[in-house]
Amino acid sequence: MITMSDSKKLIYAGKAKDVYESKKEDEVIVSFRDDITAGDGEKKDNLQGKGHCNSLISSKLFEILEKNGIDTQYIKLISSGFMLSKKLDMIPLEVIARNIATGSLLKRFPFKESQKLNPPIIQMDYKNDEYHDPMLNDEITIALGIATQEELDEIRAITLKINKILSEFLKEKGILLVDFKLEFGKDKEGKIVLGDEISPDTCRYWDINTLEILDKDSFRQGQDNVMDIYEQLCGMIVEEKDIKNWGI
Amino acid sequence: MITMSDSKKLIYAGKAKDVYESKKEDEVIVSFRDDITAGDGEKKDNLQGKGHCNSLISSKLFEILEKNGIDTQYIKLISSGFMLSKKLDMIPLEVIARNIATGSLLKRFPFKESQKLNPPIIQMDYKNDEYHDPMLNDEITIALGIATQEELDEIRAITLKINKILSEFLKEKGILLVDFKLEFGKDKEGKIVLGDEISPDTCRYWDINTLEILDKDSFRQGQDNVMDIYEQLCGMIVEEKDIKNWGI
Ligand SMILES: Nc1ncnc2c1ncn2[C@@H]1O[C@H](COP(=O)(O)OP(=O)(O)OP(=O)(O)O)[C@@H](O)[C@H]1O
Ligand SMILES: Nc1ncnc2c1ncn2[C@@H]1O[C@H](COP(=O)(O)OP(=O)(O)OP(=O)(O)O)[C@@H](O)[C@H]1O
Ligand SMILES: [Mg+2]
Ligand SMILES: [Mg+2]
Repeated sequence: MITMSDSKKLIYAGKAKDVYESKKEDEVIVSFRDDITAGDGEKKDNLQGKGHCNSLISSKLFEILEKNGIDTQYIKLISSGFMLSKKLDMIPLEVIARNIATGSLLKRFPFKESQKLNPPIIQMDYKNDEYHDPMLNDEITIALGIATQEELDEIRAITLKINKILSEFLKEKGILLVDFKLEFGKDKEGKIVLGDEISPDTCRYWDINTLEILDKDSFRQGQDNVMDIYEQLCGMIVEEKDIKNWGI
Repeated sequence: MITMSDSKKLIYAGKAKDVYESKKEDEVIVSFRDDITAGDGEKKDNLQGKGHCNSLISSKLFEILEKNGIDTQYIKLISSGFMLSKKLDMIPLEVIARNIATGSLLKRFPFKESQKLNPPIIQMDYKNDEYHDPMLNDEITIALGIATQEELDEIRAITLKINKILSEFLKEKGILLVDFKLEFGKDKEGKIVLGDEISPDTCRYWDINTLEILDKDSFRQGQDNVMDIYEQLCGMIVEEKDIKNWGI
C-alpha cells in the first residue's frame, strides 16, 4: 500500500479524508481514510478497507459524471485510497438532493417515510461545525457571503443534472439513489466544480428490489456488517475493467 | 367594552387572538386578546390593555399598507380589540423579513448582533406547532404542498414591498423596523392577501435614536414594564385623529 511520502504536505485533515499537496500547485491528493463518523461526529469507528472502497466508488462515479459533461475535481486514481484531484477553493455548502424522503428530513418536516419526491428536494446546509451545519435558504446564504444568487442557481442546476445521471447509471446496477450530499468549489479560473466524494458515506443507496440499505445508514443503525455492505456496493458499481484501467 | 354576543360563533382560538364568524360569510372578526406568550408557548402572561393596543397598531399599519396598494384582510376596526376582516384561507407560513440581524437568527447562523441586512433577509417558517415551526426552503415548501413556486415568488415580492412601506412610515415616527413576521391567506377569489396582525407581538421595533426595545422582546427578557412599552409604541404610531376616524 502506498502512503504519502514526507515530502507531501498535509493541507487539511477532515473527519474521513485528508487533503495533501501535489506536485502541481493547482492539484491535490485526496486521501480516503478508514475512519467513519456519524451523528455530528459523536459515533466513531475505523473500518479497514473503507478508504479503498470509497476511493473506487467515487472515482467511478466522477468518471461517469465527467463523461456526461459535469466538471469534477477528478483527475485520476493514483492508487487505492488516493485520488489526484483539482485543487478547489471549497464553498462551505452541503448540497443535498433527495429523491425519497427519509432520515433527518422526517424529523424536521411531516413527510412520510419513503415518500417519493418528484421533483427532488434540493437542500443546502451550511458546512459549519460550530453551528452544527444548519439548513440555509438563499437569502441567508447570500447575506453570509457564502455564494451569490447566480452561483446558487448554477449549483442547483448542476445538482439536478448530477441526480439524473447518477440515478440512471445506478438503476442499471440495481441501486436506488435515495439521496446524496455534494460539495462544490471553485477552480483557479473561478469555475464551479464538483469536489469532495460521492460514496456510501455521503449518499443513501438502496437495493432496487429489496430496498436493503447499502450505505452508511448501516453504521448509524449499529449493524455489525458495515464493511461487508460497503464491499457489496463497491462490487455492484466498480467493474474488473475499471480496476484494470486504473492500474491499481 | 364590547364582547362578542353568543350569536357569534368562535371559529378558532389561537395563542393571542380569537377568530369569530361575522354576519357575512366571507368576513371574520379578529379579536385581539390580552394573552401574551413566548418561547414556543412556554412563557405566558396576561397584560391588560395589550389587545386594545395591538388592535389599534395593526389597524393603523394595515390602513397604511392598503393606501399603498397592498391587499390586506383589514375592513375596519369595529371597536377596541375587534377587527372586521376578510375571511382568508390561511397559508401555514410565517413569512419573516429582517433588516437587522438579531434574535434567533444569531443562534443559528454567524451574523453579528445588530448587523444591517441589505437586501433584507426573507425567511419562511412552517407554522406547525408539532414540528416547532421549522425553517423551510422553497423546494421543501412545494414538496409539502404548502404553496407553489409562483405563490412563493409573489409572497416574497409583496413582503419586500411591505417592508419598504412600513420602514418608511415608521421611520417618520421615530421607529426602526428591525424585523417582522407576516401571515398570508387566500380570499374567496384565490388572491393572496395579508392577514393576521402587525403588532409589537410580531415585529421588532427599536427607538430610532436610543435603539431601545419597543416590542415583545421586553416580555421575552422579563422586563416589568411591558405594557408601558406597548402603550408608548401605540402612542407613537396611532394618532388622535385615527381614534376619531375609527369612532371608538
Ligand atoms: N478538490 C478539493 N480541493 C480542496 N479541498 C477539498 C477538495 N475536495 C474536498 N475538499 C475538502 O477536504 C475536506 C475533506 O475532508 P472530510 O470529508 O474528511 O471533512 P468533513 O468531515 O467533511 O468535514 P470537516 O472538514 O469538518 O472535517 C473537506 O473540508 C472538503 O471540503
Ligand atoms: N383573516 C383571517 N382569516 C382567517 N384566519 C385568520 C385570519 N387572520 C389570521 N388568522 C388565523 O387566526 C389565528 C390567529 O390566532 P393567533 O395569532 O392567536 O394564533 P397563533 O398563536 O399564531 O398560532 P396558533 O394558531 O398555533 O395558536 C392564526 O391561526 C391565524 O393564521
Ligand atoms: Mg466530508
Ligand atoms: Mg399568531
